[in-house]
Amino acid sequence: MTIEELRKKLIKHNLDAYIVTRNNMFLGQDVLPEENKILELCGFSGSAGNLLVFRDKAFLLVDGRYELQAARQVDSSVFTVVCTNDSIGSWIQNNVENPCTFGYDPWCHSVSEADYWNKALKRHTFREDENNLLGLRISEHPFNIFEHDIEYAGISVEEKISYLTDFMKKNSLDAFFIAECDAVSWLMNLRSDALPDTPLIRAFALVDKEGDISLFTSDMQKTENELARYKGLNIGLSFSHTPKKIHTIMKNHRVWTNNLPDPVQDWKAVKNPVELSGFQKCHLRDGIAVVRFLHWLENNWQQTDELGVVQKLHDFRAADKNFYSNSFETIAAFAENGAVVHYTPSPQSNKKLTAGSVLLLDSGAQYCDGTTDVTRTIAIGNVPREIAESFTQVLKAHIAAATALFPEKTPGCALDALSRAQLWRFGKDYKHGTGHGVGHFLNVHEGPHSLSPRSCSVPLKAGMVTSIEPGYYQENAYGIRIENLYHIVPAETSPMLKFEPLTLIPIDKRLINKYLLNKQEINWLNDYHKLVFSRLSKEAPSELSDWLREACSPL
Amino acid sequence: MTIEELRKKLIKHNLDAYIVTRNNMFLGQDVLPEENKILELCGFSGSAGNLLVFRDKAFLLVDGRYELQAARQVDSSVFTVVCTNDSIGSWIQNNVENPCTFGYDPWCHSVSEADYWNKALKRHTFREDENNLLGLRISEHPFNIFEHDIEYAGISVEEKISYLTDFMKKNSLDAFFIAECDAVSWLMNLRSDALPDTPLIRAFALVDKEGDISLFTSDMQKTENELARYKGLNIGLSFSHTPKKIHTIMKNHRVWTNNLPDPVQDWKAVKNPVELSGFQKCHLRDGIAVVRFLHWLENNWQQTDELGVVQKLHDFRAADKNFYSNSFETIAAFAENGAVVHYTPSPQSNKKLTAGSVLLLDSGAQYCDGTTDVTRTIAIGNVPREIAESFTQVLKAHIAAATALFPEKTPGCALDALSRAQLWRFGKDYKHGTGHGVGHFLNVHEGPHSLSPRSCSVPLKAGMVTSIEPGYYQENAYGIRIENLYHIVPAETSPMLKFEPLTLIPIDKRLINKYLLNKQEINWLNDYHKLVFSRLSKEAPSELSDWLREACSPL
Repeated sequence: MTIEELRKKLIKHNLDAYIVTRNNMFLGQDVLPEENKILELCGFSGSAGNLLVFRDKAFLLVDGRYELQAARQVDSSVFTVVCTNDSIGSWIQNNVENPCTFGYDPWCHSVSEADYWNKALKRHTFREDENNLLGLRISEHPFNIFEHDIEYAGISVEEKISYLTDFMKKNSLDAFFIAECDAVSWLMNLRSDALPDTPLIRAFALVDKEGDISLFTSDMQKTENELARYKGLNIGLSFSHTPKKIHTIMKNHRVWTNNLPDPVQDWKAVKNPVELSGFQKCHLRDGIAVVRFLHWLENNWQQTDELGVVQKLHDFRAADKNFYSNSFETIAAFAENGAVVHYTPSPQSNKKLTAGSVLLLDSGAQYCDGTTDVTRTIAIGNVPREIAESFTQVLKAHIAAATALFPEKTPGCALDALSRAQLWRFGKDYKHGTGHGVGHFLNVHEGPHSLSPRSCSVPLKAGMVTSIEPGYYQENAYGIRIENLYHIVPAETSPMLKFEPLTLIPIDKRLINKYLLNKQEINWLNDYHKLVFSRLSKEAPSELSDWLREACSPL
Repeated sequence: MTIEELRKKLIKHNLDAYIVTRNNMFLGQDVLPEENKILELCGFSGSAGNLLVFRDKAFLLVDGRYELQAARQVDSSVFTVVCTNDSIGSWIQNNVENPCTFGYDPWCHSVSEADYWNKALKRHTFREDENNLLGLRISEHPFNIFEHDIEYAGISVEEKISYLTDFMKKNSLDAFFIAECDAVSWLMNLRSDALPDTPLIRAFALVDKEGDISLFTSDMQKTENELARYKGLNIGLSFSHTPKKIHTIMKNHRVWTNNLPDPVQDWKAVKNPVELSGFQKCHLRDGIAVVRFLHWLENNWQQTDELGVVQKLHDFRAADKNFYSNSFETIAAFAENGAVVHYTPSPQSNKKLTAGSVLLLDSGAQYCDGTTDVTRTIAIGNVPREIAESFTQVLKAHIAAATALFPEKTPGCALDALSRAQLWRFGKDYKHGTGHGVGHFLNVHEGPHSLSPRSCSVPLKAGMVTSIEPGYYQENAYGIRIENLYHIVPAETSPMLKFEPLTLIPIDKRLINKYLLNKQEINWLNDYHKLVFSRLSKEAPSELSDWLREACSPL
């Protein structure tokens, strides 16, 4: 559909504007290109953003990560790119003066979001679009579902369901509606090939208090029929993660709705010992694959470009028998491309590597025993002193979080501040979170916890896995990010917690200005490299040992 | 009233329980003893807490600051002391299984709080107590109102009211109801002697869009009559700071209510140049008064006790012609008394000072040009190495926040984390916030900003005044806190902000283990003492100069 076609429909249906989200009915971040209405309407391909189409103007709202990319991708004569951290609701409240009637697809916005609009933005009217003006809500492409073996999952479906039925008993519920695909996948020990980089099944689950389970995919009528059976009974659901339409169906059928956080998300976030052991094993193999790549790159950078890097790195990883896919589209961004935070190379943007700048390489893999996600910033030839200075400052920020001790219940925003404050000292900052949770052979970004200024209420717990990934981006020049995954373990200094590294890949010492680091920081780096060497050297092929020894030698 | 009397009333009015708050109808933290129902019912005198009286049991809910004090003060055979950070609503949700009917005084709980109960705790019933079962809601003692001169206030009432009428125009309001006394006092440039340590006027204000002002004190009928005039019109009010009863009156009279943060709080928090200059002047005089005291203490500690300290310090401050009162009840806590976070000495608890521990002294004054609040922890005789170690760790925590650079919009929780993380490294923590806003000849604790784990949404701004006061409390042994006030100013490293000290009082170097400080920390301390010396030495009487020079000499 084009924006002109949408505007004709606005007029026909008496709407002043339409709120277009990138979401499909699963409200998650994984959206297939054919489902992405924002891409279709304006050409913006980023993983977050909202489009507000009025009859005579259109606004693309993106956060700081996507400001440059959005400006590059959309036709500025038609779309005004707005960089904001406001939600679409707050933005409308602050920027749309005249009363308007907005249409939206109730399958693609959460109950909380729509309720907020209706409650807080009384000047305007928000109308559930019953006519499916935007078309396709979810891909109809068939996909295969397969079991995530107990040998990797660690806990049986029966045991997981029994947590949930206990939870329902405690909260006097007759059933729980789980709207998040990754929670459904984890609960059912099921995976699928519906998405290229994330093996989750795309389904809602309704579990009753006896433990009986119904899964719903794209058959909306089946969903409605099943929900109708709960007339007069109590269903739990998370308003912030469930489509408004599900709530409307429940209300129409006089089902009692109980807004509760989905408990599966909390259980899933604390990895069980089998999952943790899998994370450790796959990070060892992933480390060797990436070290092979780094060794290759050192001898071959003159002959390659960003797309070559993406392919080569994939090939080294794919040699592993447990490799399933990349865990997201590889970001290989050389020089000024690195300043576009979520850049991925295309034939048009593809840059050759040339001496004198840095390659920002953010990549990861799905293995059946775990998921990896790592960013390394790599010197290509001799690099100006200014870049090394920024790199060292980002390293200080990484170390500040990685060495923190913190009590149980500390929310992620505290750790975010520890990291970010190191860059604030130099007048620098980064427009993204410091870290995110990671699924086990699931979403590479998973909640409920994260290390971000906005994550003030979810406590960090032993057993959680999280990235630490501060960065610095100098527009039109270069981008730097240093990312490891960690799991949270009890510290020797009880009752504190600490981070234990999962990622085992050297950090490029050629980019470090040692005089900007203090003793504790140098110790952390040397200890980390000692750990990397001791784990990888046993398994790495002999042709890598000299390179690895040098890369891991003390600063 | 006794708890037995209240229980008889519960039965008579068919209530299962009563929610007793420390609040009067102004919902602030300043409550006169005769208004404090919690003190009356159970003897607990702390500045925060809730009492839940059932027919057969009673729970006193306090936060970590008051755990020890509550246990000391209440009869444990009647009252169960619960240490929790949960709100009363969350606590009921998590701990009261059977459906109950709770009574509460709608004058003493906010709209938000009561709405939350009604919405989230559907199992229970919450009934507005129309019979005033607890009696007196607000002291009927007469008080004097006086003007806060423009020479100190800096901005005229007319100008302040014009901010508010502009705000109303922008939000299509016919009037704004200001429920917070400190906001009313600031807006009206009025003060009163209603409270011993805080010169605010106790009144609600209703300002209409023409700028006409009505003030309401304890005459509830007048309040109702005035509000009734707004039938069919739009009034703005902050649900989280306005008594539920006001909202009920508005609804009964068909007034349209608009829940908006009280904008006066934001304007008040950013001090104007006249207020800031007043803060600087009064801190200079306050510094000299406290240094006189410290000098006296060094020669006289053998002959005094906690109550003697309180009196002597008051006398030094009261010699100033602009002195109005203390800004809160002085905490002079020697040795193990220091571990009771908000301890104030009484004839029963009063301890003599003896060699070998520390005196925690938290005090401040109201001057007509500003308000002070400072905590010093002072060595009495030779102090064990362990205490000096803790003191130095607390000093590191203080310096970590005091030296931070941070961008506009950073919330206080980020600064809180920077400070606290220094103690986390040693397995230590403190159960209170790292800092609070400070009023100008008003509340010594004022919002909307604070440096606390819970302050995640209010951005810090240049012009705000805040304390930094990390601490460490070793039960049954000692307490340490180091508190200065700062104002926030733009840093040289644009666009960052930084803290500039207001408090000018030496930090006790005898308690510092220099080997635990790094170079930057030592530099901060030496620079701070240099500043203190350069400011105070010009004004201090000559008999203090040797002491001051030594106290401010480099580490």
